Amino acid sequence: MKRQPVIEDIFGARERISPFVHRTPVFTSQSINAMSGASLFFKCENFQKGGAFKIRGACYAVFSLSDKEAEKGVATHSSGNHAAALALAARWRGIPAYVVMPENAPEVKRKAVQGYGAEISYCKPTLEAREQGLAKVISRTGAAFVHPYNNGHVIAGQGTAALELTEDVPDLDVVMAPVGGGGLLSGTAIAVSSSSTGTSVVGVEPEEADDAFRSLKEGRIIPADNPQTIADGLRTSLGDLTFPIIQRLVQDIVTVSESGIVEAMCTIWERMKVIVEASAAVPLAALLTERIKLEGKRVGIILSGGNVDLEKLPWMP
Amino acid sequence: MKRQPVIEDIFGARERISPFVHRTPVFTSQSINAMSGASLFFKCENFQKGGAFKIRGACYAVFSLSDKEAEKGVATHSSGNHAAALALAARWRGIPAYVVMPENAPEVKRKAVQGYGAEISYCKPTLEAREQGLAKVISRTGAAFVHPYNNGHVIAGQGTAALELTEDVPDLDVVMAPVGGGGLLSGTAIAVSSSSTGTSVVGVEPEEADDAFRSLKEGRIIPADNPQTIADGLRTSLGDLTFPIIQRLVQDIVTVSESGIVEAMCTIWERMKVIVEASAAVPLAALLTERIKLEGKRVGIILSGGNVDLEKLPWMP
Repeated sequence: MKRQPVIEDIFGARERISPFVHRTPVFTSQSINAMSGASLFFKCENFQKGGAFKIRGACYAVFSLSDKEAEKGVATHSSGNHAAALALAARWRGIPAYVVMPENAPEVKRKAVQGYGAEISYCKPTLEAREQGLAKVISRTGAAFVHPYNNGHVIAGQGTAALELTEDVPDLDVVMAPVGGGGLLSGTAIAVSSSSTGTSVVGVEPEEADDAFRSLKEGRIIPADNPQTIADGLRTSLGDLTFPIIQRLVQDIVTVSESGIVEAMCTIWERMKVIVEASAAVPLAALLTERIKLEGKRVGIILSGGNVDLEKLPWMP
Repeated sequence: MKRQPVIEDIFGARERISPFVHRTPVFTSQSINAMSGASLFFKCENFQKGGAFKIRGACYAVFSLSDKEAEKGVATHSSGNHAAALALAARWRGIPAYVVMPENAPEVKRKAVQGYGAEISYCKPTLEAREQGLAKVISRTGAAFVHPYNNGHVIAGQGTAALELTEDVPDLDVVMAPVGGGGLLSGTAIAVSSSSTGTSVVGVEPEEADDAFRSLKEGRIIPADNPQTIADGLRTSLGDLTFPIIQRLVQDIVTVSESGIVEAMCTIWERMKVIVEASAAVPLAALLTERIKLEGKRVGIILSGGNVDLEKLPWMP
């Protein structure tokens, strides 16, 4: 689907994927509320199948293909969680999956992709290298490309997380989501703006990968150039489908420091006893380092994933 | 309460403590089911207030004191989670708490006790040193002693976790809990045997702290002698209240290796994205290392707590 999805697409996605994915719980923490001054509601997509929200979009995209489109399998490029999600969704549909991964993708994510039975090719960590690698794979296999975010079905699928959140927690003032390529943020913005008037949507990204912030400021897509951030899920650039949705429906993009991300990640682990990856901690980092002030507000935060190399934690020496 | 509690005491405990404690969720994991061959239902007491089930018993004990008994505060000895729980319950009641902790208690647990405002004294990690330290504190302060496990109110409180589990998950074949001093296991056994006929109860402990296993075999309490196990919550010995309940109502005690505990802990982190401490991983370790075979069974497991030094993880070099 190359058009911008609308709320009906998100309802359609929910119906299609609900037999496969979890309706994840919403957690709260009195101590983190006290630290932030806001009432926070964490949508725990780290407990989702495959350990991240990505299965929502991948599953909807894979099951939206016609039998003919699907018969030679699906292919994508991804730093990790979308790759694993696509591999899992392809397995559910009984078709092959081919994945191009940047060579700096975390080990845990590579293993997950392999575990779900996909074929992996590695490339340099640039958008150009990813796209070249993918073109080769597709010309060899004839697989259907499922873009990690610049795909209407993927965006609609990702929007189902925020749809559930606004159903489970009424009267949110703000919903915050991390932004990499913008699939989660644009889907979230469509879901929230349609289902909950008066709730604003804020995207958060690392300072070191602030392409969405700069793109919105300049009114055109400014690609990220091999950004160095611990938030490995947020190193990608906006796409021509996600960018205009974010322009239209997202109230603010906030950036956070690397140390703020690590601190927020550690806070979530310690206080909530749940494992999130660095990318998932980025919205809380914006609150705890006061890049945005939401005192007294009811704030939904999408904890995007929990796939972490347990042997390489960022607070270890 | 120095008598053995009965199921009515557990109902009473539930009513008394429910305004204060969480009804924790029950998690499942398809991948861990596949590894174990059983259907596992994890009662997530790591998400409990204070990060462990201990608040259930401590809260019931503290709120069962008369005003006169409570006015000089409460005191205990504990390796950590009971100490933090007692401190928190005392704060809720508005009375002081005094805690004697073994000097090898984990840093994270010491900090929690301090954070809840209790006064700490340190002692050698033996039962004798703990009891001597406590006697001093009590003679100085006049505080009421709330034993970490050999106390009827504490046992009844701990039993509320299994009560909730059997309500939320019907037709369990087995409920497994770790055993240190036996408060959780004896409370669990009372709850399960009274509310769910046909469900057996199994206690699991480290080989390196196998005093419950040996005590049951010999028919008398054999104290643990400064055991060295990573499961810091399970280094204590059975008491004269918990032992006969376990003798009467627990079907089996199984022991597990240290490496099995670490492996199971890591499996829970990786697959479920939830943080548990080593003591909480002990029952799963029994399944994964085949110290007990429960293939095809429906098994409830109490994940007792999640208080871990994130900078000192057992799989780190």
